[in-house]
Amino acid sequence: MRCSIARALELIGDWWTMLVVREAFMGTRRFDAFQRNLGIAPNILSARLKTLVASGILARVPAGGPRRREYRLTEMGRDLFPVLVALMQWGDRWLAGPDGPPIRLLDRATGMPVAIAVRRSDGAILGSADVRVVGGRGASAALRLPLGGVPFDG
Amino acid sequence: MRCSIARALELIGDWWTMLVVREAFMGTRRFDAFQRNLGIAPNILSARLKTLVASGILARVPAGGPRRREYRLTEMGRDLFPVLVALMQWGDRWLAGPDGPPIRLLDRATGMPVAIAVRRSDGAILGSADVRVVGGRGASAALRLPLGGVPFDG
Repeated sequence: MRCSIARALELIGDWWTMLVVREAFMGTRRFDAFQRNLGIAPNILSARLKTLVASGILARVPAGGPRRREYRLTEMGRDLFPVLVALMQWGDRWLAGPDGPPIRLLDRATGMPVAIAVRRSDGAILGSADVRVVGGRGASAALRLPLGGVPFDG
Repeated sequence: MRCSIARALELIGDWWTMLVVREAFMGTRRFDAFQRNLGIAPNILSARLKTLVASGILARVPAGGPRRREYRLTEMGRDLFPVLVALMQWGDRWLAGPDGPPIRLLDRATGMPVAIAVRRSDGAILGSADVRVVGGRGASAALRLPLGGVPFDG
């Protein structure tokens, strides 16, 4: 599929894969630390790390000590930050328990709260009903969209 | 797990589930249309739709004609819009073919391009290195974070 959502999900659309990425954002780097923090079976963790390295999302780099390796987010991996924050914000709103969200994200410099939103290039926040879909340069012949685009809204 | 990312992925962290949601945002409502547009096996589609209805992301509502039903995004489902746009933007940047992204999202009113970013409450765009994590009201006793929080960055 040409759709960028489908291609993205092919790489990261798996529960454990995305939790491994979250863990990497939280600073985890070593196999045993991933295993301990996620409570994940070694064979599943090993497969997910291999996929993430093969996809270019994590890099396996030498660490202190002979034969020690750690996993670090690449630029492609760090660019998943908005996806994680969007997932977190949705979970905070719809799935948090009675006590509210377990963690909050704050700007490191000012302590101000952090949020994510879809915006127009002039800064206005948009909902799905405000957006239309038009064919891009990479559209297949099969993807025929009306000249004015179609609404992106169920 | 209390983490909102983990809870979100438990509901939608499956390739087909998120593609069904994408399809619903594109205006698809009927079982046979989901099946045709996604090229998905009926039993898999049926299971994913059931899960999405049980989770509150889709509603199964009466449509024209006896015994006809269609699936519509609920408010909880529409609130997944930023997650989809974040996935799409990442896929556009890292996974699009040589021709570029297949579709573009434009503001319906002005035609201006649409994008998503993590921002501070005063509007400044933030990367993962700019953000720190602090415990929220719903933090478990096991989630011990230093008073100043920890950096959200690998």
